[in-house]
Amino acid sequence: MKKLLILPFLLSAWMSQAFSQSLPADYVDPFIGTLNYGATNPGAIAPRGMVSVSPFNVAGGGNKHEKDSDWNSTPYWNDNHFMTGFSHVNLSGVGCPDLGAILLMPTTGELNFDPYTYGSTYSEETAKAGYYSVKLDKYNTTAEMTSTIRSGVSKYHFPKGQANVLLNLGLNLTNIEGGMLKINSSTELEGFKMVGGFCYNDPSTTYPVYFVMELSQPADEYGTWKEFKEITGFEKSFAPYNGDLIQSKFNKMHVAGDSIGAYFTYNLEEATDIEVKVGVSYVSIENARENLKAETADKDFADIRTESKATWNNLLSTIEVEGGTHDDKVKFYTALYHTLIHPNTLNDVNGEYPEVGTGNIGKLEAGKSRYTVFSLWDTYRNLHPLMSLIFPQQQSDMASSMVDMYYENGWLPKWELNSTETFTMVGDPAAVVIADTYLRGIQDFDVDGAYEAIMKSAEAGRDEDSFNPIRPGNEDYLSKGYISTEAESKRHNVWGSVSTTLEYNIADYSTAQLAMELGKKDDYKRFMKQSKSYKNLFDKKMNMIRPKNADGSWYEPFDPLSGANFQHTVGYVEGTAWQYAFMVPHDIRNLAKMTGGNKTFISQLQNIFDNDLFDMANEPDIAYPYFFNIVKGEEWRTQKTVNDLVNEHYTTKPEGLPGNDDTGTMSAWLVYSMMGFYPYCPADMDYAITSPIFDKVTIHLDNKYYSGEKIEITAERDSENSIYIDQLNVNGKAHNSYFIDHSKLVNGAKLEFKLKDSK
Amino acid sequence: MKKLLILPFLLSAWMSQAFSQSLPADYVDPFIGTLNYGATNPGAIAPRGMVSVSPFNVAGGGNKHEKDSDWNSTPYWNDNHFMTGFSHVNLSGVGCPDLGAILLMPTTGELNFDPYTYGSTYSEETAKAGYYSVKLDKYNTTAEMTSTIRSGVSKYHFPKGQANVLLNLGLNLTNIEGGMLKINSSTELEGFKMVGGFCYNDPSTTYPVYFVMELSQPADEYGTWKEFKEITGFEKSFAPYNGDLIQSKFNKMHVAGDSIGAYFTYNLEEATDIEVKVGVSYVSIENARENLKAETADKDFADIRTESKATWNNLLSTIEVEGGTHDDKVKFYTALYHTLIHPNTLNDVNGEYPEVGTGNIGKLEAGKSRYTVFSLWDTYRNLHPLMSLIFPQQQSDMASSMVDMYYENGWLPKWELNSTETFTMVGDPAAVVIADTYLRGIQDFDVDGAYEAIMKSAEAGRDEDSFNPIRPGNEDYLSKGYISTEAESKRHNVWGSVSTTLEYNIADYSTAQLAMELGKKDDYKRFMKQSKSYKNLFDKKMNMIRPKNADGSWYEPFDPLSGANFQHTVGYVEGTAWQYAFMVPHDIRNLAKMTGGNKTFISQLQNIFDNDLFDMANEPDIAYPYFFNIVKGEEWRTQKTVNDLVNEHYTTKPEGLPGNDDTGTMSAWLVYSMMGFYPYCPADMDYAITSPIFDKVTIHLDNKYYSGEKIEITAERDSENSIYIDQLNVNGKAHNSYFIDHSKLVNGAKLEFKLKDSK
Repeated sequence: MKKLLILPFLLSAWMSQAFSQSLPADYVDPFIGTLNYGATNPGAIAPRGMVSVSPFNVAGGGNKHEKDSDWNSTPYWNDNHFMTGFSHVNLSGVGCPDLGAILLMPTTGELNFDPYTYGSTYSEETAKAGYYSVKLDKYNTTAEMTSTIRSGVSKYHFPKGQANVLLNLGLNLTNIEGGMLKINSSTELEGFKMVGGFCYNDPSTTYPVYFVMELSQPADEYGTWKEFKEITGFEKSFAPYNGDLIQSKFNKMHVAGDSIGAYFTYNLEEATDIEVKVGVSYVSIENARENLKAETADKDFADIRTESKATWNNLLSTIEVEGGTHDDKVKFYTALYHTLIHPNTLNDVNGEYPEVGTGNIGKLEAGKSRYTVFSLWDTYRNLHPLMSLIFPQQQSDMASSMVDMYYENGWLPKWELNSTETFTMVGDPAAVVIADTYLRGIQDFDVDGAYEAIMKSAEAGRDEDSFNPIRPGNEDYLSKGYISTEAESKRHNVWGSVSTTLEYNIADYSTAQLAMELGKKDDYKRFMKQSKSYKNLFDKKMNMIRPKNADGSWYEPFDPLSGANFQHTVGYVEGTAWQYAFMVPHDIRNLAKMTGGNKTFISQLQNIFDNDLFDMANEPDIAYPYFFNIVKGEEWRTQKTVNDLVNEHYTTKPEGLPGNDDTGTMSAWLVYSMMGFYPYCPADMDYAITSPIFDKVTIHLDNKYYSGEKIEITAERDSENSIYIDQLNVNGKAHNSYFIDHSKLVNGAKLEFKLKDSK
Repeated sequence: MKKLLILPFLLSAWMSQAFSQSLPADYVDPFIGTLNYGATNPGAIAPRGMVSVSPFNVAGGGNKHEKDSDWNSTPYWNDNHFMTGFSHVNLSGVGCPDLGAILLMPTTGELNFDPYTYGSTYSEETAKAGYYSVKLDKYNTTAEMTSTIRSGVSKYHFPKGQANVLLNLGLNLTNIEGGMLKINSSTELEGFKMVGGFCYNDPSTTYPVYFVMELSQPADEYGTWKEFKEITGFEKSFAPYNGDLIQSKFNKMHVAGDSIGAYFTYNLEEATDIEVKVGVSYVSIENARENLKAETADKDFADIRTESKATWNNLLSTIEVEGGTHDDKVKFYTALYHTLIHPNTLNDVNGEYPEVGTGNIGKLEAGKSRYTVFSLWDTYRNLHPLMSLIFPQQQSDMASSMVDMYYENGWLPKWELNSTETFTMVGDPAAVVIADTYLRGIQDFDVDGAYEAIMKSAEAGRDEDSFNPIRPGNEDYLSKGYISTEAESKRHNVWGSVSTTLEYNIADYSTAQLAMELGKKDDYKRFMKQSKSYKNLFDKKMNMIRPKNADGSWYEPFDPLSGANFQHTVGYVEGTAWQYAFMVPHDIRNLAKMTGGNKTFISQLQNIFDNDLFDMANEPDIAYPYFFNIVKGEEWRTQKTVNDLVNEHYTTKPEGLPGNDDTGTMSAWLVYSMMGFYPYCPADMDYAITSPIFDKVTIHLDNKYYSGEKIEITAERDSENSIYIDQLNVNGKAHNSYFIDHSKLVNGAKLEFKLKDSK
């Protein structure tokens, strides 16, 4: 069914690009973000894939970046050189280590089960959307990999001689140990690997990821290995293998332990290709097998690679761009690709998925997706608005997933990861995402349930006896209108009293907008009022928002530069006072007034960019470049700043993301910014406008949700240096604003920019 | 079906004992053998049970005997004092550590997952056949346990308050780690534990033991724990729980790892009994559940305890004894009980069992048993002959199990343990057992297959290219007639060239006897000739068997006292030259001649006993006391020596076994010796006679195999000091021999002894 739906879209995309040289997926460079803490990986992944097959080069061999060091959160660094396998479940662009597990490795010659010595240097790396290949120097073996949503598929080009396929469950990105496996035959293995413990927040949230592995031809020998725990006592002398990885040839029994693995060996009389398919499930081994069968049966590596590329082209073609440089297209489509990785699919092909918190297995209606990996403190700002615009069906399922999590766990998600709620970061971002989704016109989810859930997060925790894991600062917030610095050390363990107050304000604004749409006027009024409580933290003397104590006095000392580079500082979450100074997008015009009027506001804002106080690598100030638009005559600063940031922080090199991609948030910023508009305030339907990078952008709209067929953006420019907006016509008429409403766009709009070289 | 068959037997046993105070099982004292390296345990076990529930007191708390020290091979020492739980799979009376796993522990109060601190001192221990109970001082909780063949059943008498049932898969007798578990509900858990690596011989022979655990009432809370591996690097500071046992409340997902466990907690408003049933299988979790259901559904602890006791009484009543002291009966029935522990049942109730070496699951015909734990170097000497006599159906199934192992693994068993072949110890004992079984009249097994298997072990390894794991010394043995000392260090890694030559001789003698019975006269001649090749090692100058080099010279230095106390010495296996000097039971009369005639022989033999050269604690010389019978007029020495050994080495105290029970071999020696006859030479149908301890012994015969109904042995004695045979009538006629043929006994014989005080 799904395939049949995809093909017509694909064909149309193909046809519209018939005369261009490349299709969108050809521009995707998965190496972008694999340095500079981008934390993306070049592994093969299908859109929103549960599985990716990523090179794993962070264990041993004298690598520059090593797992367990420097808060390493990615299985791959582009400047490492020693590869120890290919991991099948991975996170992309996150700031904490997790997953990076189910490691396959092709080797040749004598068996060696120690990843720190069976690893190899490598060369001839290639990465494309849905495809990765590399040559392992030590083994003269080229490994190619592709994937479906729930299965990884690898092809190893072995030379003549002994060839080995190793599965290592004893090595993964984190130190969460434990796994189980069972070889069923010379071509099949099943098992699970323990993962979890994200961010070291809660070591109790470990859980199994199940898998079934199939080989394209029967192995001549197979077996398992298991580490014999090093013993130190009397009996040590009787165990010459003390501490070794012990091989069990032809072992078909279950093996479990912290450090275990399996091997399949071939005695090849000539160079031979061996294909390995790994189906994954978070529900059961049976489901992993069903996923594998449904997605890969009767297909070989080449078929699946072709299918993956077609799927990517189909989705990426939702936005077609013309003009711009080749590098611009690479940056754009790679960013769009990054927004299609997380949230990713959690449900199996049969609709089953692990619920949050219940220990039960949920089951979806046919055609629905359960999504996971909700890094909402990041993604509420732009990724979800972007998904609402271009992939509304996906965003609808994401909203439904979030509401289902509420029913399961009693709370909306905050930082949900494979149905474990890590409650990482701050604020009440799910409320923002749900309100924004609804307001953009996606309303086919359980809105009543969602509203109930939002109300619960907004209300709970009013007194000491009531618990609120979403808004631990609610006691202060609801009684004082701000969170006091004392709450940072009190029972609620609030992180960043100012930051968290501002996050609640944004959530309350979003909630108010949703309430208004739903006809709940009292709620609208109340939450609108609450949303402005940041004013309690505005120090008129300093002309700045700053931390406040419970008794109403300002917290001292106050250093607006403190908190950069993830240093801990009272009042702020991963940022300085400057990076939060204007994080009131929903009331930015009032804040500008309070700051002393437009002139002072512009001066302060420009000062941030001019004096390196802006952090492109993290979310709090990410909308700042668009705030110049609120002051008439100063919009050129947005155009200039955005253009500079796009060129300075985003490149086609591995270091071409400003920092952690934050599950696509940094990339979504780029996608919008290169198209010429940005949702500067979630749940506000106005986009801020800037100058597009491309000559033409066509956004194909989903007619299930939007009445328009497409949004067309064109730009005529005096020269290649034309970054300033001279004129904008919308649907043939002059548009006298630097904002444009979402509904205008999705009704099918034509935006014609005329760009000039100077402001 | 089985139960229906058991009941009539039981009733008859009951009735015949109707006027005595106690039934046989009442005399069983499972504490015997729990000191002095007896290595038995007082746990609850059903006859030939796959499961036993044994107290586990060898981990922490300042115990005298600790796991991993001093080659500790038992979960329980009677002089320890700190208990850490109750293990559900255990070996009894072996010399190497294995199993001692699936540990349950009742605790009260706050949860603690560290066995080294949740352990407790204990008191009020009781052990009976099929029953054990103890009070855990720290928790004021009495724990009772009983079992079926494949299920352990425990009953914990908890006081009011928080009560916890802990399942620990991170602790077991050995250092084999790894397990998996999953809580299915507040009353059920399933999983498996890795065990194996017996004797540290081969760490690759680890394998899972599956189980399902059921609680009699739903727990108020449950969860799992898992050790977080201690990390030392950069990220250590982020994990304050580094190295801890991490609790996951209400976790119903799979957990796997080296150190994992689960808990079920009750908030008891009054003192409450909680019952826990654990079903076990070596095939699968499904089979463990089926076993549990088939054996325990609708039965509570009391039912199963009653059933277990009845089963024990039924089997033990096969031999009824009268007269003798209470202690004599305790020694006798405890010894008989010990012969009914190993070999034990391996197959599940549905007939499935893991095959040896294939990785496949075998399936029995209905009514058959697959046995395991064949410590054949020990048991061929007396345990299997005893089983042939009193439980011929069991011995038939044991022979069938052994032949099936040949079909599966290509070789007969040597030291088989839960379908792993450890190839421990020396010789070719399976050939002896099979021949002996057949000759005793048990012929309803696959004799052709058995003969084929015996021939393979006898023939293979003739040259360097051919492999023989049963007889690694065959190259020398078949070409030279003896194994040279050089073979001890050569590729074959023979242990004890003299000992192993003698073992092959005994096997060849047995094979010859079987060949004769099967009409294979050529084989008979050849193996009879081979069986006397020990003569090549007889040094006429020294009048003694001694190690010989490949070139025919004697190995120097030669110290006939070397090799005691398990010291390594060239030529001998766990013994001295004296302890092997007469280990030629099949040709003992000729050896006596070679030694210089009867007088010298008697003198040398007596010297062994007089000068502490005899070792009652190990097998090689175990038949020596009966060898006096071969010289007319010297038989009183057998009567005297056996009587002394029975009194000196066997008592009713925990130290009451001479050493490792060797899966019942030491006990079988006692059973025979107390009845007045002993199979001094396996595959020779003559028993050597000595004076019985009891006034009357009645052996009920199985009419499926034997024509006689019973063997009746009576003894009239002048006084309680009458240990010498004055006269013996068999079936009313004077018996002028100190040997008696097996067939005479099993046709139904009445032996009337008249005993006197002096020789």
